Amino acid sequence: MHEQFLRQAIELACHNVTELNGGPYGAIIVKNGRVIAGSGNRVTQNLDPTAHAEIMAIREACRIVNDFQLSDCILYTSCEPCPMCLGAIYWARLAEVYYASNRFDAARAGFDDNFIYAELEKQPQQRKILMRQLSLHDAQQPFELWHSQQNKVPY
Amino acid sequence: MHEQFLRQAIELACHNVTELNGGPYGAIIVKNGRVIAGSGNRVTQNLDPTAHAEIMAIREACRIVNDFQLSDCILYTSCEPCPMCLGAIYWARLAEVYYASNRFDAARAGFDDNFIYAELEKQPQQRKILMRQLSLHDAQQPFELWHSQQNKVPY
Repeated sequence: MHEQFLRQAIELACHNVTELNGGPYGAIIVKNGRVIAGSGNRVTQNLDPTAHAEIMAIREACRIVNDFQLSDCILYTSCEPCPMCLGAIYWARLAEVYYASNRFDAARAGFDDNFIYAELEKQPQQRKILMRQLSLHDAQQPFELWHSQQNKVPY
Repeated sequence: MHEQFLRQAIELACHNVTELNGGPYGAIIVKNGRVIAGSGNRVTQNLDPTAHAEIMAIREACRIVNDFQLSDCILYTSCEPCPMCLGAIYWARLAEVYYASNRFDAARAGFDDNFIYAELEKQPQQRKILMRQLSLHDAQQPFELWHSQQNKVPY
């Protein structure tokens, strides 16, 4: 059953390349054995660097279930999620993830997934993109306001 | 100058909590010394787990500059980016990132950023969310199609 859904994600990836001129990735989300959302990679068509297949499918699934969490859903994706998509998977609190190719296959195809995984493990000041924490006295103010907010919605 | 823009991101975060009942995060994007995009965290209001302040600001900035890359832009964010947002920063190819609070401050406020950083460094099969690579004979087909696609748009 997992193989069947994963094959659907691969088909979506192939269709995305040949018919939609998009990136070679596809993802679907399944709830109770039924596909509720799916997408190819839409980065270049949507002019949105966050429009990876997994992110698009997560956004669509959230619209369908009308929630910002997908706790009882399974993600099938043609390739191992990149760090951005892996983060999204944790924030969406998906139950399980199945994938076919991996970050090394993606690297061979010219994509940065494996490079970004390596960057993430570095200290911020050692990364290729300059990242710097500046010391400001009001740095904690958003968290303090959040803490004292009465009707906040945790996530 | 960096401090001034970073303070704007913090103000956005505070406003997001007190006026919009959103999460305690804010981010702005600056190009040529001018703010071109900015957002608070919209996860619970948009029912979108990917609607972190940085992701929202990146998407908005891409719409403004009409490109899927932001190579000459700087991101200012009230808190160190989570792995999802850090991934998005790399895909958007931002030039620099400045932040005020960090992942440990976020953890103290009840957020998963630091937990997700730790999860990312694990092998997929050792993570809290079940992740499994299934061996399918057509796993590489999307990359093969991508490779032979004549008018593809690399990203």
